[in-house]
Amino acid sequence: MAERSISLEDTIVTLAEQKKYPTLRDILVTMNPADTAALFEELDEHLLPLLFRLLPKDEAAETFVEMEPDSQELLIRGFSDSELKEVVDELYVDDAVDLVEEMPANVVRRILRQADPETRKLINNILKYPDDSAGSLMTTEFVDLLPTMTVEDAIKRIRRTGTDKETINICYVIDDGRHLLGTVSIRTLILSEEDEAVSDVMEENVISVGTLTDQEDATALFSKYDLTVVPVVDNENRLVGIITVDDALDVLETETTEDIEIMGGVTPTDKPYFKTTVWETFKARFPWLLLLMISATFTGQIIASFENALAAATVLTAYIPMLMDTGGNSGSQASVTVIRGISLNDIEFSDFFRVVWKEIRVAVTCGVALAAVNFVKLLLVDGMLFHNEAVTVPVAAVICLTMVCTILCAKLVGCTLPMLAEKLGLDPAVMASPFITTIVDALSLLIYFRFATAILQL
Amino acid sequence: MAERSISLEDTIVTLAEQKKYPTLRDILVTMNPADTAALFEELDEHLLPLLFRLLPKDEAAETFVEMEPDSQELLIRGFSDSELKEVVDELYVDDAVDLVEEMPANVVRRILRQADPETRKLINNILKYPDDSAGSLMTTEFVDLLPTMTVEDAIKRIRRTGTDKETINICYVIDDGRHLLGTVSIRTLILSEEDEAVSDVMEENVISVGTLTDQEDATALFSKYDLTVVPVVDNENRLVGIITVDDALDVLETETTEDIEIMGGVTPTDKPYFKTTVWETFKARFPWLLLLMISATFTGQIIASFENALAAATVLTAYIPMLMDTGGNSGSQASVTVIRGISLNDIEFSDFFRVVWKEIRVAVTCGVALAAVNFVKLLLVDGMLFHNEAVTVPVAAVICLTMVCTILCAKLVGCTLPMLAEKLGLDPAVMASPFITTIVDALSLLIYFRFATAILQL
Repeated sequence: MAERSISLEDTIVTLAEQKKYPTLRDILVTMNPADTAALFEELDEHLLPLLFRLLPKDEAAETFVEMEPDSQELLIRGFSDSELKEVVDELYVDDAVDLVEEMPANVVRRILRQADPETRKLINNILKYPDDSAGSLMTTEFVDLLPTMTVEDAIKRIRRTGTDKETINICYVIDDGRHLLGTVSIRTLILSEEDEAVSDVMEENVISVGTLTDQEDATALFSKYDLTVVPVVDNENRLVGIITVDDALDVLETETTEDIEIMGGVTPTDKPYFKTTVWETFKARFPWLLLLMISATFTGQIIASFENALAAATVLTAYIPMLMDTGGNSGSQASVTVIRGISLNDIEFSDFFRVVWKEIRVAVTCGVALAAVNFVKLLLVDGMLFHNEAVTVPVAAVICLTMVCTILCAKLVGCTLPMLAEKLGLDPAVMASPFITTIVDALSLLIYFRFATAILQL
Repeated sequence: MAERSISLEDTIVTLAEQKKYPTLRDILVTMNPADTAALFEELDEHLLPLLFRLLPKDEAAETFVEMEPDSQELLIRGFSDSELKEVVDELYVDDAVDLVEEMPANVVRRILRQADPETRKLINNILKYPDDSAGSLMTTEFVDLLPTMTVEDAIKRIRRTGTDKETINICYVIDDGRHLLGTVSIRTLILSEEDEAVSDVMEENVISVGTLTDQEDATALFSKYDLTVVPVVDNENRLVGIITVDDALDVLETETTEDIEIMGGVTPTDKPYFKTTVWETFKARFPWLLLLMISATFTGQIIASFENALAAATVLTAYIPMLMDTGGNSGSQASVTVIRGISLNDIEFSDFFRVVWKEIRVAVTCGVALAAVNFVKLLLVDGMLFHNEAVTVPVAAVICLTMVCTILCAKLVGCTLPMLAEKLGLDPAVMASPFITTIVDALSLLIYFRFATAILQL
């Protein structure tokens, strides 16, 4: 893919320099809007308005939607009012809302001025809903039918009004008060007799979401119930919009990226890697590093307070990284598994003790197995092979007991913190590797020195 | 949600004990198959066959598809041959294939014996494709049209054959040799004039995948091009099946879970948390812990080889955890960001030097900022406030220089390893926190002791 788009890019630039506009247009119309947008992002800014104007009207709008906000703004600033109106008229309402949310205030004023009054009203309505709510994600362009219509009436209505709708695959049956009564798929309509009533063929068991439902919860319904559209209703069950699966997929991708970034100790951003400046990346990473660095100084203080013990048995120092790392990794395993389980709704807070009990058993088996391997390795490899006489049986015992207890603590910390975070309304993803590691480091050292002072009488 | 399903569960159990089957049936038919399946999973096994038999035929099949393999097997073992046939006949081919893949050999033989000959052939065809390929994911139940048909013919054909198809929203136009010529949506057909030719209204610019395309690449097309179905073609562009967005969503969820688990140092499993036994969880986690523990012993050897330096300046030991953790966290930040960028196709191997250059700049800014905070903290807090006279300016300089260099190395290791893994055909997710931390730990200690011996003349 990479090679191909590079050479296409060069061709486009050459053709543009030679002013071969019909050829350029022929190339662009064969391309899919998503690919055209990706190509435009690669090209030099000054070519953008020229190439964009070569696209047919409907393809122009579809390409525009796929572009990054920076390029969209650049294009809008170069548009005449009538050009802007043409693009805005072609956009679906949800895409227009996304655009308005991304643009600076003076550009937004121009967009809203060019939108026709009804579209403007729809945009403003959707803008009222909080970010990340189902309401802010929906579009208002759906097909509505009345229960009293016949299948023939319904198909006629779809023919008449369907062109501007985001989807006609599922139509919505509402009463005079716009309350949602049921859904009917175009498939059902096509396969039914023409004189049947819509109310007889509709599906009444409808999965819908409220306007204020969190967008993550709304999008989870798509995979749970194998849906391609979900209706959005107000608190009196009046149909106000629909969410289509393509938007749900985008939300899913964004939310997953956010989770993964938070789990890696990075403040999430919705921009692709190369679109963020060094300064933005710095701001996304520095606060976490600072916080974790400060937390890690406590671990240092634990070491400092056992300085005398360490001086008496210097051999112990060499095993600190291994114990800390194994603890950290054990904790990460538990936390990552539980965080993912929570976001897939496999684990809820009511499962707290089931999770803890499972992790205890896993921890004990892992801990004992690792400690056994380690005990043999310490005595055979470190002790006999490398003739390190400081590695005695009591020292090996200290290290291996620490390992079992550290893994147990690590798994417990790793599985409980995400569930507690969820219960407190925090994002469980925060309780991933970096935090768990920092906490477990301190715990592992405390356990280590406790066993060392007890067994080695330091 | 949890509370509701618990009380519903109790009601169901009570009604079953009282043998109130009509009431039970009334409750079950109002439920969505996905919810029914989830409810069944919560109930005691002995109730399963009874309740399942209360479901109407089509709903039974839909519920069956949503259940866990264990429960499916339990049901099949209790089915008479005719009951099994009823369920198998109602399944879409892709769901039947999934079932066959999950069941033990003797159950598979029974399923295939009950399937009608054509279905059996289709199932066997799909089973030939490798796991994780587009071919193994597809279904063969799509609507095919000829280019010479009129829109009216096409709609008639859909009415006649559409009932058994997984979707009719997109239909496929093929020639006599079954080569894929284009697609036409039901929407286009409904909105077109009846006497237009299918070839005139079809979309010729079709996004398709090969049967052997990796399922992850195939599903990425859905969000990239906003699709709800993707056609699967063989290497001569003959249409052999389609993948629908609901299956793509499942793949996306599974692959994301896999990535996250691998990043957390756990061998991925496709079972939910509570469905794995302690032994399975142990097997998924122990090998990674063992491998990482062994790697961490090298870090220990570095400490051991600088034992004399540490004995001469014991103050240095207390700062080891902070330096190791900050290095590990910096590396994780870079690796997580790059791993996610690779899986979203934002980053390719050809971007290697752009990524490295960006990470260098981020590393230097983060490193210098953290070192500055740390320098002040070391001299003011540790030195003056806690009267730790060992924390001199040269010692603080060693710690802060180590911090800058460690962060630089960590970010470089963190960003390059995932890209190299991808280039070598490995899963980039392997190069996340646990591995990066282990490597960076060793690097940070080497840097630390190098600076210490040079500046403090140990």
